[in-house]
Amino acid sequence: MRNFKLTMEYEGTRYQGWQRLGNTEQTITGKLEAVLERMLGRSIEVHGSGRTDAGVHALGQVAHFKADTDMSAEEIFTYLNRYLPMDIRILSVQEMPLRFHSRLHAVSKTYCYRLYLGEKPPVFERNTLWCIGHELDLEAMERGAADCLGAHDFQSFCAAKRGKKSTVRTIYECSVSSQGDLVTLRVSGNGFLYHMVRILAGTLVEIGEGVRSADSVPGLLQAKDRTLAGPTLPSCGLTLMEVRYPESL
Amino acid sequence: MRNFKLTMEYEGTRYQGWQRLGNTEQTITGKLEAVLERMLGRSIEVHGSGRTDAGVHALGQVAHFKADTDMSAEEIFTYLNRYLPMDIRILSVQEMPLRFHSRLHAVSKTYCYRLYLGEKPPVFERNTLWCIGHELDLEAMERGAADCLGAHDFQSFCAAKRGKKSTVRTIYECSVSSQGDLVTLRVSGNGFLYHMVRILAGTLVEIGEGVRSADSVPGLLQAKDRTLAGPTLPSCGLTLMEVRYPESL
Repeated sequence: MRNFKLTMEYEGTRYQGWQRLGNTEQTITGKLEAVLERMLGRSIEVHGSGRTDAGVHALGQVAHFKADTDMSAEEIFTYLNRYLPMDIRILSVQEMPLRFHSRLHAVSKTYCYRLYLGEKPPVFERNTLWCIGHELDLEAMERGAADCLGAHDFQSFCAAKRGKKSTVRTIYECSVSSQGDLVTLRVSGNGFLYHMVRILAGTLVEIGEGVRSADSVPGLLQAKDRTLAGPTLPSCGLTLMEVRYPESL
Repeated sequence: MRNFKLTMEYEGTRYQGWQRLGNTEQTITGKLEAVLERMLGRSIEVHGSGRTDAGVHALGQVAHFKADTDMSAEEIFTYLNRYLPMDIRILSVQEMPLRFHSRLHAVSKTYCYRLYLGEKPPVFERNTLWCIGHELDLEAMERGAADCLGAHDFQSFCAAKRGKKSTVRTIYECSVSSQGDLVTLRVSGNGFLYHMVRILAGTLVEIGEGVRSADSVPGLLQAKDRTLAGPTLPSCGLTLMEVRYPESL
C-alpha cells in the first residue's frame, strides 16, 4: 500500500462543495474519486485537509489517498489532470509515508476572502470575488482584523450549534490589503470553525461600513454569541490558499 | 439626438461573438441592444469598433449608439451594468459629438493573445488563455514578432478570401512577454484583418516550437499566401485590450 498527497486548485462555482453525503456527482471528492477509480480499477477514498463549502474555491487544497499501485507520482499527476474537468487542477502529487494524513497533520490553513468595491466586478474575476458596490474604511477593518490575532474562542464566528468540541482557534495572520477596488482579507490559523472566515469577513465589512465600530471585535469574541457578529458572506469570495504541514512527518 | 460612447469588457466564452446576422440572442450586441431597448422603450442600434469572433474576449471594446433621451451618461452606465449579464461589464459611458463613430474614427487597436506553457491552465484563468503544454523558445518568437512591425501586406495572415480591399496594415507594437508559464503576445496596429492576430499567434508559436525559423516572417509576408503561415489559434486566448481615438474629435 502507498500513500499519495495531492495539492490542487479548483473553482468551486459548479460544485456542491468538497464533499457531500449522498449525491457525490457534483463534489470535488466525487470527481477525484471517479477519476482515481477509472485509473486504478477499484474504488478509492480521498481524504481532504478539510471540507470547503459549496461555491468555495481553492488554490492550495491538500488531500491524500492510499492505493496499491505501481504508478509513479508523475504518472498519477498527468492522468488526473487529463481526466479531471478544467475547473479542477492538480498542482502536485507526492508520495508520503503511510502515516501521513492531510487533515490530522495540517498545522495551518490560509484563506483569502476577496471583496470588490465597484458596482460590478471585472468580468474575468466575477466568480471569485464578492461585490460590495461601495467604499469601505480599510483602516478600521485593519484594526478589527488585528484584534482577531492570537488564541480566542471563536464561538461568535461559528455557524454550527454549540457542541462539546472546543471553539478555540489560534489566528496567526489576519490582514486587509487592497489594490484598486479589490480588497483582500487574508486569514491564517491553526484551524477554522464552520463558516468562520465568511462570518469574520461579514463582520469586518460591517466595520468598514461604519455599521459597527473598529474596536468591537474583542467584545464579540467575549460574548460567544453568533447572533452578535456580522453576516456570513457568500461563498464565491472565499478561496482556500494554502495548507501547511510539519517539515518532518 | 445624442451620441454615447461605451467602453466595455466581456468574457466571450458564452457568446457567438460581437455580432451575427440572424440570431442575435447570444451575441454581445444582442445583449446590449436588448437592455438599451428596455431602457429607452424603442429599438437601438449599437455600432462597435469592430467585431470580435465567437469566444473572443474584450477588456476595452468600444461601441456607440445614438438615442433621443434625457438620461445622463451616469444613469445609462448604472442601468446597463445592472441589467447586462455578469460576463458583460460597462467600464464607461461618455457623451460624444454626433459625428463620433467607434469604427470609423478608431486609430489603433491592441490585442493580447495569452498562452500557457504548462499541462493544464490555472483554473481561475482557464477560459482566457490557450494551453500549449510545453516550453517555447521565447527569444525566437520575439525575433519573429519584431519582423511584423511597420506597414506590411498581411494577406498571408488573413483568413478571408482575397478581395478588392487592401490587406496592408501598420503594426505599432508586436511583443512577447512572459511571467512564469504564462506567455503574452501583445499586438497593436491601425487595424487587423480577419483572424489576423490568431494566425500571427499560431505562426509565432510554431517559431517558438522550432517548426519554423525565427527569420521566416519576412518571407511569409512577401508570399501573400495564407497556406504558408501557421494555424489559427483558438479564440479563447484572444482579448481585445484597447481601442484608441484621436484626442480631438
